[in-house]
Amino acid sequence: MGEFAFIDWLRQRTPPTERVLLGPGDDTAILHWPSGPNCLVTTDMLLEGSCFRLAETHPGAPGAGTARQIGRKALAVNLSDIAAMAGVPVAAVVSVGLPRKGGRALAEDLYLGLREMADSFDTAIIGGDTNSWDGPLVINVTLLGEATPRGAVRRKGARPGDRLFVTGPLGGSLLGKHLDFTPRVREALSLHAAVDLHAMIDISDGLAADVAHLCAESDCGAVLRADAIPIAEAAQTIPDKRSPLEHALGDGEDFELVFSVAPAEAEALLRAPPVPGLSMIGECVAEMGLWLEENGQRLPLPPLGYVHSLS
Amino acid sequence: MGEFAFIDWLRQRTPPTERVLLGPGDDTAILHWPSGPNCLVTTDMLLEGSCFRLAETHPGAPGAGTARQIGRKALAVNLSDIAAMAGVPVAAVVSVGLPRKGGRALAEDLYLGLREMADSFDTAIIGGDTNSWDGPLVINVTLLGEATPRGAVRRKGARPGDRLFVTGPLGGSLLGKHLDFTPRVREALSLHAAVDLHAMIDISDGLAADVAHLCAESDCGAVLRADAIPIAEAAQTIPDKRSPLEHALGDGEDFELVFSVAPAEAEALLRAPPVPGLSMIGECVAEMGLWLEENGQRLPLPPLGYVHSLS
Repeated sequence: MGEFAFIDWLRQRTPPTERVLLGPGDDTAILHWPSGPNCLVTTDMLLEGSCFRLAETHPGAPGAGTARQIGRKALAVNLSDIAAMAGVPVAAVVSVGLPRKGGRALAEDLYLGLREMADSFDTAIIGGDTNSWDGPLVINVTLLGEATPRGAVRRKGARPGDRLFVTGPLGGSLLGKHLDFTPRVREALSLHAAVDLHAMIDISDGLAADVAHLCAESDCGAVLRADAIPIAEAAQTIPDKRSPLEHALGDGEDFELVFSVAPAEAEALLRAPPVPGLSMIGECVAEMGLWLEENGQRLPLPPLGYVHSLS
Repeated sequence: MGEFAFIDWLRQRTPPTERVLLGPGDDTAILHWPSGPNCLVTTDMLLEGSCFRLAETHPGAPGAGTARQIGRKALAVNLSDIAAMAGVPVAAVVSVGLPRKGGRALAEDLYLGLREMADSFDTAIIGGDTNSWDGPLVINVTLLGEATPRGAVRRKGARPGDRLFVTGPLGGSLLGKHLDFTPRVREALSLHAAVDLHAMIDISDGLAADVAHLCAESDCGAVLRADAIPIAEAAQTIPDKRSPLEHALGDGEDFELVFSVAPAEAEALLRAPPVPGLSMIGECVAEMGLWLEENGQRLPLPPLGYVHSLS
């Protein structure tokens, strides 16, 4: 099957919507953009061997996923970015670099995963670029979303005194969650409707690292309370020397949301949570820096987490 | 330099505009979208060894380009897609997979090339994703554009009797043009303002292949006149057994535009061309298929050109 046959295959599986005036198969897609909402744009590239391992080629490798799971994840990480702005996902384009051998089967499995995730979040797949090459699998998704009338929630905006919340338990994602997490799109919209979110970020690099990003943009610091951080079951069973709390603080790819709200709003959230799974994990402080409060002591917390190194 | 230092570097080089409410460095970019125009979306992935060779790692290889040229091209191929819809480019996001060794220098050179092309076409670079891995260089650009009030020009819409035009000479692009072509954005807008463009496509796969795509979408066929096809100088000097005409018909990556207009509009274009370099190369016919008229003979023309094969 050549590139064009694959595009035909995609076209047949791209249901038309009111928003999508023209889907895959022309020089560009055409999207209706209603007057009012700003356009949110995010893009993520997943590279085999660096961002994921294919179960098809690395059976049994830790964290390995099937092509269908990788397709799902490639869209889900972008949905998580839209969630972090409290936005509504609209449409995605997908580029792939497929290994020459078995590329067609991979492409179809990737697409089935993408489709599954897209359908769960009313997101159209409106176009893409299909290539084959001698390298490993590469998949890039760009996702467009709409800000709600309340506006997008940025990383910038947290204030000293704000309470910090997280939407679910953390740590040990590599044992499975990184392949089947649910991006917190609906939770973000419910929270944004219920309270005034000052700042928000999704946890892709790790709790400590991502809180540090939020603080750096907001020109403030944060204190996290060790006994308040929700720890995932996986973080307690992962077989290494780090404690469950260290996993919760440092592991990436949880794709939960961390956000800050004023103290009065925090009380409202604790009294009547608009979404399940919320934990208040600390607060923002005026002094720049990140601290962990544990057993009555406040110690500096390094922004543990994953950083892509460019040498 | 880690990923975050690189994002800081990008931020400093991303001038704010009225359209770009939030540039690189948050979970998504935020773009103002004025009421009215539809949103055009296109994406292209360039893979080292398949879509390009790096002069830095393959000095002297045929068609090899520097990282700066590849950055330029990565945006230019997307601009060409927006041109093919007679749209106005607005903003791009860029993902890269960088080889671990020398990745920072490559990233900066890529970005300088992207920036140069973006500035030439008033396009903002609003975000991206930076990765390093053990594989070769990969770069993906997604470009958003606006349709003009006349609407986007699709591949579909050509009618039997329409005249076919091309915006410049063709063939031999591999000798250099594929790295320094000017996407026909301005030409497309001038043409769209001057006449009613029925259908349009940019020549990325090759003239015969791309006319075949336009015809397939328009449910018609086409006859090209051999003596009317403008042949680039490079097509005459390329050292192989194919004739200059065969190069003009079959070589990819010319990134000129092919479009169809009604006969009366064709006369207007010939009388007072709104852009330089136009050639009328044939016409659309009711019968499906592609023919070449040469020395009074009309022979079937295979849709020569490059197809990514997926096995």
